[in-house]
Amino acid sequence: MKPRITVLTMGVDNLEKSYEFYHNGLGLPSKGIVGKEFEHGAIAFFDLQNGITLALYPRKHLALDAAIPVSAPSPTEFSIGHNVRSKAAVDSTMELAKKAGAKITEHARDRFWGGYSGYFQDPDGHLWEVVYNPNMIPAD
Amino acid sequence: MKPRITVLTMGVDNLEKSYEFYHNGLGLPSKGIVGKEFEHGAIAFFDLQNGITLALYPRKHLALDAAIPVSAPSPTEFSIGHNVRSKAAVDSTMELAKKAGAKITEHARDRFWGGYSGYFQDPDGHLWEVVYNPNMIPAD
Repeated sequence: MKPRITVLTMGVDNLEKSYEFYHNGLGLPSKGIVGKEFEHGAIAFFDLQNGITLALYPRKHLALDAAIPVSAPSPTEFSIGHNVRSKAAVDSTMELAKKAGAKITEHARDRFWGGYSGYFQDPDGHLWEVVYNPNMIPAD
Repeated sequence: MKPRITVLTMGVDNLEKSYEFYHNGLGLPSKGIVGKEFEHGAIAFFDLQNGITLALYPRKHLALDAAIPVSAPSPTEFSIGHNVRSKAAVDSTMELAKKAGAKITEHARDRFWGGYSGYFQDPDGHLWEVVYNPNMIPAD
């Protein structure tokens, strides 16, 4: 199996609200909610760097697709790491998320492993960690 | 905010068991479980294509890091898309996952949007969709 992730699909309870948060709040590029013409088809895609796609998809439709029961939100299932180039960029990104309506669960602070990070939750409770890691500086 | 995901951290209940599944079962490259010398520090990293890192981290430690309560497993929180180059590659990847101990929740089948995919769950119930999408063929 190739060590590859191409899409990260997040289950959401309110597709419009989540789309608003990610597109208008955080500014992630997207063509909008598509597939509304199909039953259980409505979905939003965001084109990220390095060929990765972030998708927002109703939790109940993900359950149907995967043939599993719908389950309740659970923020400790995963966290998305968003690395930036400086501590100041962590602070400004956390501020942007807050203005977009994110819940700040942990303000940015120095971490024992040498970095600096904070956590916020999107409207469904999905966790993002905004990170300055001196050993993992993104190119832009 | 740059449209960027650098790390996907999955909360797990048994780090050794999950590491075994991903490293020995699925064959994802890793230097092993690191950080055991730190309290709440044990974590496993897998270097994926395009500069993305997949991390396995105990759910309770993710909760501590993010300053939120530990929550129960919930498979409809997210799904990882793993695109491959053919329907046959979907089938062989699903077979590999099954041999590694994955639970197949939905055998691969044609999808209304023109692709072919199946779903499996890792030891913590985290969902992977193995996908052949004629409009999204990976380079290798």
